Amino acid sequence: MRFARLGPVGHEIPVVVDGDVAYDIRSVTADIDGDFLASGGAARAAAALAAGSLPVLDDAATLRRGAPIARPSAVYCIGMNYAAHAAESGSLPPENPVLFLKPPNTVVGPDDVVVIPRGSEKTDWEVELGIVIGSRASYLDSPEEALTHIAGFVVANDLSEREWQISISGGQWSKGKAAPGFTPTGPWLVTPDEVDHGALRLRSSVNGEPRQDSSTADLIFSVETIIWHLSQYLALEPGDLVLTGTPEGVALSGRFPYLGAGDVVEIEIDGLGRQRQDVVAFEGARS
Amino acid sequence: MRFARLGPVGHEIPVVVDGDVAYDIRSVTADIDGDFLASGGAARAAAALAAGSLPVLDDAATLRRGAPIARPSAVYCIGMNYAAHAAESGSLPPENPVLFLKPPNTVVGPDDVVVIPRGSEKTDWEVELGIVIGSRASYLDSPEEALTHIAGFVVANDLSEREWQISISGGQWSKGKAAPGFTPTGPWLVTPDEVDHGALRLRSSVNGEPRQDSSTADLIFSVETIIWHLSQYLALEPGDLVLTGTPEGVALSGRFPYLGAGDVVEIEIDGLGRQRQDVVAFEGARS
Repeated sequence: MRFARLGPVGHEIPVVVDGDVAYDIRSVTADIDGDFLASGGAARAAAALAAGSLPVLDDAATLRRGAPIARPSAVYCIGMNYAAHAAESGSLPPENPVLFLKPPNTVVGPDDVVVIPRGSEKTDWEVELGIVIGSRASYLDSPEEALTHIAGFVVANDLSEREWQISISGGQWSKGKAAPGFTPTGPWLVTPDEVDHGALRLRSSVNGEPRQDSSTADLIFSVETIIWHLSQYLALEPGDLVLTGTPEGVALSGRFPYLGAGDVVEIEIDGLGRQRQDVVAFEGARS
Repeated sequence: MRFARLGPVGHEIPVVVDGDVAYDIRSVTADIDGDFLASGGAARAAAALAAGSLPVLDDAATLRRGAPIARPSAVYCIGMNYAAHAAESGSLPPENPVLFLKPPNTVVGPDDVVVIPRGSEKTDWEVELGIVIGSRASYLDSPEEALTHIAGFVVANDLSEREWQISISGGQWSKGKAAPGFTPTGPWLVTPDEVDHGALRLRSSVNGEPRQDSSTADLIFSVETIIWHLSQYLALEPGDLVLTGTPEGVALSGRFPYLGAGDVVEIEIDGLGRQRQDVVAFEGARS
């Protein structure tokens, strides 16, 4: 199953996407959020779809694509989780998953405009496989058990301001990960049965030129290991978003320029959909 | 004005505290949260109190004290913001505010039991002045402007697991800041007119023995500077919690033992109230 949320910011309509058709699931749930996911909502939506009781959303193709989940209670990020990216960032591969957080209000739709924050000179892209939590996960016994707590997977762009991330916060990264709109997410929340999350090709491009091209098979810490590991240190909640790290091919490497107004960023993960963002300058008005 | 939330977890009753009397403000708001604070709720509650229209909550003294704000959308923390604490942690005073985040589900009541997380050997206390945001703050023009975005102040204990914070997350601190219950908050949300936030004595003790004893006058980056600074990098939202850092006198210094079962932690800030936490061992059941 593929879930999406379509419509203006704050007024997204929850849908199930089947082929090119979007079925309105407002008869099943008001939103795609933690409560929905934790209460067996996916199964209810599947049953309603099978029963033919869901209306087609006619104008779906004309609507803005929102993030496929409502605002999470937390956005957890794993850093340096591809060896080649660690190397291009000047780091050794980590011995344990490296955790930092982004504020949840960075989560926006997959095609929303990216505004270069005021004063930024080093805004960078990062395609990442995102995990959406389906049920509370605390002190899991094994990585295998993690799978039962996963509602699905999403594409995410972990936009990053490198000067702010690295140089002006005593080495703590969150300051460069937190600007408004810095986590485009979606288009779809795809249930685990639909993808082989351990072998997904993920790619990014800028202005049509390839940047990142890797596979989740290259993750140092797997999806299962990440969720199990985090559950030893914190409690993951339904609807939370866990980003799994980005592969090599970002501007921080020095091989590519940072983003500027007029650029177009596209990122994609096989089976999870494609994002396209126009990059614009900060216009002086407060966001 | 002092706001509080009294009652069982998830069923806290919002009140205004006047002297020893708690007035039930459910006729004014369902909860003390971002919407309440951003919509002038404090003024409405003050008007209702002045009009004598608020009922006294009779059994207030017998009720659990919850965090005085509903779960924030984000908990921002400033690290190393007292010179003597930076020194005891082995660091130089920072040139810019050091930012990291805690997950919002760490926020609990001021007297809730502290559970030593499974596997922890270095659970530590940190008394901190907390700022509650009253209105969205993005790209503020000056530190002075920050004051208009502050709803009030709270006591917070930024509980920390030092091994997890420092040694097993590649230097990113959040892994040691995120365990369930790791941010006792309250008892009161105190409006800015009631305290001189730039000169508040803050103290902690363990089993009655003094640990921290300092003043917010010693903050490297002031309340106003922190809010203005953060607003250049992210958007603060109503109800968000910003912790301003802890003074010297924590176990990380090597001068005191870490917390263990049976310990009693008390922390206090002049005018903002006092917390008391019983420390207990992890019992094996999943939290």
